[in-house]
Amino acid sequence: MEKIEQHNCFSGVQLVYKHLSEVLKCSMNFSIFVPAHEEHEKLPVIYWLSGLTCNEQNFITKAGAQKYASEHKVIIVAPDTSPRGADVADDAAYDLGQGAGFYLNATQAPWSKHYQMYDYIVHELRQLIDQHFSTNGKQSIMGHSMGGHGALVIGLKNPELYHSISAFSPIVSPSQVPWGIQAFTAYLGADQQTWKAYDAVELVKTCQVQLPLLIDQGTADSFLQEQLKPELLHQVCVEKNYPLTLNMREGFDHSYYFIASYIESHIAFHARILRG
Amino acid sequence: MEKIEQHNCFSGVQLVYKHLSEVLKCSMNFSIFVPAHEEHEKLPVIYWLSGLTCNEQNFITKAGAQKYASEHKVIIVAPDTSPRGADVADDAAYDLGQGAGFYLNATQAPWSKHYQMYDYIVHELRQLIDQHFSTNGKQSIMGHSMGGHGALVIGLKNPELYHSISAFSPIVSPSQVPWGIQAFTAYLGADQQTWKAYDAVELVKTCQVQLPLLIDQGTADSFLQEQLKPELLHQVCVEKNYPLTLNMREGFDHSYYFIASYIESHIAFHARILRG
Repeated sequence: MEKIEQHNCFSGVQLVYKHLSEVLKCSMNFSIFVPAHEEHEKLPVIYWLSGLTCNEQNFITKAGAQKYASEHKVIIVAPDTSPRGADVADDAAYDLGQGAGFYLNATQAPWSKHYQMYDYIVHELRQLIDQHFSTNGKQSIMGHSMGGHGALVIGLKNPELYHSISAFSPIVSPSQVPWGIQAFTAYLGADQQTWKAYDAVELVKTCQVQLPLLIDQGTADSFLQEQLKPELLHQVCVEKNYPLTLNMREGFDHSYYFIASYIESHIAFHARILRG
Repeated sequence: MEKIEQHNCFSGVQLVYKHLSEVLKCSMNFSIFVPAHEEHEKLPVIYWLSGLTCNEQNFITKAGAQKYASEHKVIIVAPDTSPRGADVADDAAYDLGQGAGFYLNATQAPWSKHYQMYDYIVHELRQLIDQHFSTNGKQSIMGHSMGGHGALVIGLKNPELYHSISAFSPIVSPSQVPWGIQAFTAYLGADQQTWKAYDAVELVKTCQVQLPLLIDQGTADSFLQEQLKPELLHQVCVEKNYPLTLNMREGFDHSYYFIASYIESHIAFHARILRG
């Protein structure tokens, strides 16, 4: 693991590391913000999963989260959004291949060799963070758009690992929208039964443990009608009595200007639960 | 004037406009954040001048200033850092030509045709903002690095127009450091007498009106020793009894992580004076 960036930021340090991922079989960058803390103090971790085309930089440069992570004394880890490199399968489209890993374990060639982002986030990266940083074993997960989908799916499938879930503008049911149908067909194949394991709306129907779930969605988001469809998740949460807080934010769009405006409330939401 | 971006952000709206500058003889972008306000309420303006290689985007995506501009109800305008375009003189170096206008009026060929950033900021852009937005005629100025130099010089030379000055990591005496010597030689020529009009250390020696002046400088800034030299400004301010607050911030570097960490205090500083 090699440190490639270090910046003082608010009361803590924003770091970026490069490491060789065994799961993804390539070199990966991740960012981690570590707030000021006592020498032997152990801290909870919030994982942030980014959206299409992003890497480990977008969240740390644009969301303004370090202020609130400092105040609540939580670590925030932001990984890249796919395996990377010249020998990693890719596609000319912005929404498939590198930058578009969809936080799943691909089963189809040519993707399956490297595209195992689900195992990378849930197992390898989490263990790497716990091994190298002063964590207390408690973590929550949040994300944006494709990363909102990732946070929902990973949180819903692993309630023993994560304490709370939140998302901005998530793809709530990739099986039912163009972004997800393209990605799932490529990565998982044509059998739509296999898609259910990575579809938050399907997972809410069957999950046994309910984690607190917060979603913020802008009403002026240009992807709202075709790709995001929060009403599908809202409906199944009502049916299953799942504790979803869904805030529709008037006039906000899909950008980091929206995320920056409400990230304080997401970090406070997770911190309250992680410290409770 | 054409609106090219609009995003809700905190309680206000982040906008980006394109317009044809008569002074610069080219098309220019600028960004403006307008906080929520009553319909007929007129607001003060803070101008932000960015550093080398930046354009109108860096500050609005990375500094996190919109939260504090919303709270203090101030407009923030962030222009580009030079004239732009295929027919505008340029240089292969990152620190000369496009992206490196140094906020002066060039007198030397080939630069003098377009590089009139001083007049653009002080006159044309200010008048454009006052004409199209709900401003109250009060403004302050701040900036980073080359833009810190710009804020110092423009504020010191125009105390009747600006109410306060602040800077992060400014080039305080371009006449004495490599960045400035290269730029001033190109834009102003070899006669160093002409450089004094754009050197904050020289201007403090002769200015008649003293504006409140706040500077934050990171101690881990890699440009501190060779290019920034805040001690030169500090010394002349002591000699002239000029009211400078210079905060040396332990371990902070030259990046927007530093700016984001202290922008709240700069906006509060200006807002207190602008509303006083």
